[in-house]
Parts: sequence; C-alpha cells; structure tokens
Amino acid sequence: MSIKNVKGTHDIIGEEATSFTYIENLLKQIAELFGYQEVRTPVIEYSELFVRSVGESSDVVRKEMYTFLDKGERSITLRPEFTAGIIRLIVQNKLLATSELPLKTHYVGPAFRYERPQLGRYREFNQFGVEAVGINSAEIDAEVIVLSYTMLQSLNLENVLIKINTLGDEESRHNYKNALKQYFSPYLEKMCPDCHSRYELNPLRILDCKVPEDQEIVKGAPKIKDYLSKNAKEKFDYLLSLLDGLEIPYEIDDTLVRGLDYYSETVFEFHYTSRSGKDYGALGAGGHYDKLVKELGGPDVSGIGFSLGIERLYSVLKDDGLLEGYFDNDLDIYVMPIGQIDKQFVLQVTTGLRLAGYRTDQCFEDVKLTNMFKRAERKNAKYAIIIGENEIEKHEVIIKNLRTTEQETCPIDQLIETISRKMNEEDLDEEFSQNVKEG
Amino acid sequence: MSIKNVKGTHDIIGEEATSFTYIENLLKQIAELFGYQEVRTPVIEYSELFVRSVGESSDVVRKEMYTFLDKGERSITLRPEFTAGIIRLIVQNKLLATSELPLKTHYVGPAFRYERPQLGRYREFNQFGVEAVGINSAEIDAEVIVLSYTMLQSLNLENVLIKINTLGDEESRHNYKNALKQYFSPYLEKMCPDCHSRYELNPLRILDCKVPEDQEIVKGAPKIKDYLSKNAKEKFDYLLSLLDGLEIPYEIDDTLVRGLDYYSETVFEFHYTSRSGKDYGALGAGGHYDKLVKELGGPDVSGIGFSLGIERLYSVLKDDGLLEGYFDNDLDIYVMPIGQIDKQFVLQVTTGLRLAGYRTDQCFEDVKLTNMFKRAERKNAKYAIIIGENEIEKHEVIIKNLRTTEQETCPIDQLIETISRKMNEEDLDEEFSQNVKEG
Repeated sequence: MSIKNVKGTHDIIGEEATSFTYIENLLKQIAELFGYQEVRTPVIEYSELFVRSVGESSDVVRKEMYTFLDKGERSITLRPEFTAGIIRLIVQNKLLATSELPLKTHYVGPAFRYERPQLGRYREFNQFGVEAVGINSAEIDAEVIVLSYTMLQSLNLENVLIKINTLGDEESRHNYKNALKQYFSPYLEKMCPDCHSRYELNPLRILDCKVPEDQEIVKGAPKIKDYLSKNAKEKFDYLLSLLDGLEIPYEIDDTLVRGLDYYSETVFEFHYTSRSGKDYGALGAGGHYDKLVKELGGPDVSGIGFSLGIERLYSVLKDDGLLEGYFDNDLDIYVMPIGQIDKQFVLQVTTGLRLAGYRTDQCFEDVKLTNMFKRAERKNAKYAIIIGENEIEKHEVIIKNLRTTEQETCPIDQLIETISRKMNEEDLDEEFSQNVKEG
Repeated sequence: MSIKNVKGTHDIIGEEATSFTYIENLLKQIAELFGYQEVRTPVIEYSELFVRSVGESSDVVRKEMYTFLDKGERSITLRPEFTAGIIRLIVQNKLLATSELPLKTHYVGPAFRYERPQLGRYREFNQFGVEAVGINSAEIDAEVIVLSYTMLQSLNLENVLIKINTLGDEESRHNYKNALKQYFSPYLEKMCPDCHSRYELNPLRILDCKVPEDQEIVKGAPKIKDYLSKNAKEKFDYLLSLLDGLEIPYEIDDTLVRGLDYYSETVFEFHYTSRSGKDYGALGAGGHYDKLVKELGGPDVSGIGFSLGIERLYSVLKDDGLLEGYFDNDLDIYVMPIGQIDKQFVLQVTTGLRLAGYRTDQCFEDVKLTNMFKRAERKNAKYAIIIGENEIEKHEVIIKNLRTTEQETCPIDQLIETISRKMNEEDLDEEFSQNVKEG
C-alpha cells in the first residue's frame, strides 16, 4: 500500500518547482537592492515564543499551531509565521547593538498552520518576507511598503491594491479597546464562545470573528480612526503623504486589524485582481510592531515587516500567464548511444560535456534512435551526439544540430572545442537577429 | 526574559547565510548541468513513511525522530532525511510512468534528528541531494558519483576521498546476515540491549553500534565481500572500472554499511581532509536502493542518491578559507541626508536609484556626516549621495566617488543617468585593468 503526503501539505514538482525558485530568487534580489540581508531561523521554536508574541487571543495560537513535546518534554512548535522567530534571532544574537539601524533582514521558507484545508491554502506553506527593526519612523514604514510594491511590480502583477490602516499607538488602542468592550458588552451573551474569551483577552480579535451572526454585530462596532491619538493620526497622515509622493496606490481600509496581537500603528495587505477580473484576496500582508522586540527580551524599539505567500503568488502568476518564457530548462546536448556499445566511452563523452559547462543528458534506456530523437526534442536540446560501434572504433562522434538537422563527424579529442565554437556562433546569431529585430 | 532558540538548532546570519545560499545555488546549478530537476517535498510526513523505508532497526527511527500526533490524531514526523519523501512524491505523482528514466531529481532543505548535540552537528540541519530512480545500472551509479565529486570539486574542495562499498544484492545480504547472526550469537549476551533487537531486526545494524565493548566484537565480524553473489561482485567491479575511467579517486571500505535499512548494492561516503590536515569525517553520503520504490507502493525499480550536509560544507569551506571573494554584498550607493531636511525628497532619491537597479541604502539615523562616511565605508559603497537643505532648494544632489573622493553636483533629474554613466565607466576600467593584468 502506498503512503500519501500529509493532509494539507503539497508536493512541488516540475514547472511549479522552477517557478517557486524563480519567484523566491527575484524577491531576494529586490530585497538586496533595498539593503536587506538574508537570515534563516529554525523551523522549530519553543511554543512560548509564539504564545508571547503572536498572542493568546489569536486564532493562530489558539487553534492552528503544530505543537508537541520533544523527547526532553519541552513544548516545541513548527513556526506558524516568521516575525516572532526573526525578532528572537535579532535579540538573541544582539544584532541591534552591532548593526546600523534599522536592521534590515529578509527570509524565505516553510511555515505551518493547522487550518481547514481549502483550495489554494495549505497547512505547510512558503513565505518570503522582510523585517526592518530598530527605528520608529514613517520613512521606514514607507520604505517597506515601497519594497513590497516593487516586488509585486517586478513579478509583472498589475492591479495590486495596498489596503492600509493604522491601529494607532498604545494610547489609541487602549481607548479603542475600551470602546469595543462597551459596544460588545450587551451582545456578548449571544456571541460565540471564542468571542467571549476574545472579549477578555483582546477585544480587537472579535473584529476577525468568522461566525456570520457575530459578523453582523461587528458591522456596527466603533472604528479605530475615531480613537486615534493626535500623534498616531499625524504619523499615519505623514506616511500616506510619503506614499503619495512615491506614487504608491493604496486604499484606507478601516476594517483592517490583522489577526496577530503584536501589530500596532501601520498595518497593510496586498490585494490582487487578475486580468480576468478574479479577486484573489490578499497575496501577503504586514505591519508595524511597537512592543514585540521588548516583549522578547530586546530593547524598547519598534519594527515593521511584511510577508508574501509563495503559493499564492505562483497561483496568480500562473493563472494570468505571467510565468511563460521566464526560465530555461532546456538541454544543450543529448547523447545517444546506439545499441550495446561500450558505455564507458559514452559516459566519458557525457561527463566531459557537463564539465565543460553544457547542460547534457544521455539516454540510459535501450530504445530506438527515432525514439531518442523524440526525447531530445521534448527536452528542447540544441545538439545530439550520436555514438555507435563504428564511432567508438574510430574514436569519433556524430554531432547533429537539432534545429538545422546538419550533422558532421568529429574526432573525440576535438569534441569540446567544436561544440563550444558552435554554441558561440549560435549565441552571436541570436544576438544579431535580436539587434535586427530591435532595429 | 528572553526566549532562546530550541536546543540543537541554530540561527544562520550574516556571512554564514550568504554562504549557505551560495553553496546551495552552486550545487543546484551543477545538478541541472547533469539533467537533474528540482522537487520539493513537505517537511512533515506521516511517520509510517520513515518506519517503512528507513527501517525499524535504524537508530534514526528508533531514537532520533521528531514524531507527534497532529490535532487529527495522526502520527506525523519531521523528515529525518529526504530519500523516503522523494520516493513517496515520485510514486504518488506517478512520475515514473510519464518521464524518461532514470527520473532525476534534486532537493534542498531542512531535516531533523534528535541526536545528542555535538560541535557542528545540529538537530535541525540542511541537506542538498539528488535521487536518480527507475533503472538499475552501474552507469547511473557512476553518473551519480561523478556528480557528487564534481560538486565538491567546484566548491574547490581538494583532498576529497570517496569511500565506497557494496552491500550486494538480496541474495548476498541474506547470506551475509546469516553469517553475522552465527558470528554474534555467542557474544550476544554481553552486548548492549540495542544490539539484541538489532540482532533480531537487522544484524547489519550491529556493525554501526557505538558502544566501545561491542565495537571490539564487531572488529572480528565477517565481511560482506566474502558473501557477494557473482552478479553483485561483477556489477561492483564494473562500477569501479567506470570510476577508474572517469578518474574519480575512491577507496574501497568494507566496513561501510550506512545506517538506513533501504540501502543495497553501492554505498559511499565523501571524506574530507582540510589543507591543515584536519579530518572532517563525512561531508555527505549516498547509496543504491533496490526495494524502496516498491515498498512505498511504486513499481519494482531501483534508485540511487546522495546528500551533502550544508552545515558541514560551510564549516570546511570556512576553515579552509575557500569562501573568500565569492560573493559581493557591497552597496553601490549610500544616501546621506544632512540634518532635519525633507525626508520625502531623500526617500524619492533612494527609491529612484533602487528602481534603476543599484543596491542603495540611506542613513535613517540622525548621525554626523563623518559617521555616515564611516558607515558607507563599512558597506564598501562605491558612491555617496549627499543631500542637505541647500541641495533640496536647488533640486540637486552631491555625488561623491568614495574610491577617488572626487565629487560633483548633479541636478536631480539627471541623477540616474549620471550614476549609470559613472558605473559603466568603472566597469570598463576594471575590465581594462583585468586585461592588462592577464597580459
């Protein structure tokens, strides 16, 4: 009997695997253009890290974490998101004391949430993201949002809309939470059990409730914008003016509160509508955090970050036909041994071409020559090297250009030289016709 | 109080992070030169997968797996190695039916083993590897070994020794296991409890026992080479002749049995001795498997693969000084705002340079100009852009070449053009002096 993959996980193969790597590398390049450096945190962290940062009132901590005891009876969790681990890394390695601020990092890798499996949503999924930590300033918020927008633009995603909101500073949120408690208090009895504990732990989380009856009640709740302190309002307005100056399209969404407890001030999501008008929801999201670094044992400084879902990006890019022509999996050379010949010789030819830097494969199966040509075609190979008994005897091979079908015999000791000359000529030809096309 | 990383895991930052990515990308490129394609399996798999493949008698399954029940009460394991998951992926996605054989894949990512933490050994570690599945032939074994050797060579690791052995075919192993049982039987009473169950489940595993007293007994045990069937011996000798023809250095090590149950026939390890003579042990290992694909529900075909430890590779490359000069984290441009000026303007300059493709950073902290120059120097920036009140008023910036210390004033609307001309000239200069050097 065969064993399947774990429910909610997925295998990444073929064009999807190539696309994931292409997307991740592109995002990485742009992050580095903006001065962000790669860091890697472990997949596993002590559970306490997420309880303390993402928060006891969040759905992520309450319901969605893969948590278990290791053989030493310590509670371990597969990271449900990256920010907490990145801040833990920054604090533990004392990076804020030794680096220019803000400390700017990027990351990529798998994260895990035990959610109800849905189309295009996985329990093990991949995220790319950044964190800029150590200075509280609207300019850095703007930089991070410009970075995210540049990333999506460079993937050729038009119609990206940034939904943005502010959760205000501590004073604003304190007043707002009180207002929410006052508002929900008379309804609470009818509301779901989760909302009861949200009411106690963090009434902001009630705004994320998925129960339809509760959502009706939420509609009438007070808005954060009416509880912002003067400072919080000024900072948000200044950020918006910076985004205007940088021509970043955004829309203020005062229902946006993000489901993790550590957020404060600026929060945002990237929404995408495909060419065909399909609304894909959020491709990613981010926000500012005031207390997280201190909460995890670091200095009293703030940070801001965002993450993008690689599965999400792949799915919209594929649906909109934006991945075509971006990567070249083609073979340079396909080596075809005819019949029961000396495999030592064939292997040496193949290996020599690979070591010379040509993407080369050889046919290992005992199939007919016509079949081998079909395979070479499927792999889009430029050249075939044909080796039969006759060739081995004379120490030569047949080189066939699979585009022009021209073929010639070549002594084995001149093979690399000949192939390399042919490849160069071809590159020049392509360049020439490119120049002609471009006028 | 601050929370630390989980015992046995490690954070990867700074030069180490850049090196990991460099190493992984290089290995990936070479794998693709050899016609191997990337696949990604989930980190989590059903525990049954590893019990059935890696085997109940292996230390990995018996002692080292991170295994837990998910919220649906299914037993889940963090992959302790990749081969089982890759074969599960190949079988489940029916790739053998739709691809040319052998199906050639490469992979990279984290794996998890609850081992005693030791210097340079982690419980969460990273591996790069390949699997070639679907045809049993010495030529493919040779290809895989050449690939591994080419990878290590391209990392400039000299003094790599391939230790190789054969575990023979089923008939050979059957006879050998009987011989082992006969040999160990009189000693068994004195041996460790683990060896007792190894004796029952798979006496080959006794050869891996780490208990010193048991190791003494193991020294006198029969050798697999004396129990090889005619076929197994012929195949191994032919493989060695292929490796000779390809000038791959190897050493037959008849104590090499590899600790996972699925191996059969060819097994190998890559040993490295540093320039200073330090023995690093195995950088990676691999082997052939006859029954694994069928055991996991696929057709009755064999495969062969190997994996390399990224942590191990990084540590030897670093110790031997082989990572220097391989990557460029340098900044192109550092933007320096003087005093309390309009940050909107500064942010637009920085963003414009980034969108033009220059790795640019700006100083966000309120520090003195001399301090900013020190920072630019630390980041090895080529140019500084200096912006004061005066420049903003006149819509210009100061461009300073940090190598020559030449500086000039430039209207803001000509900035990109000017920088791009300067960068091109510098590239040409470098090329010129390179040509002069090379004669």
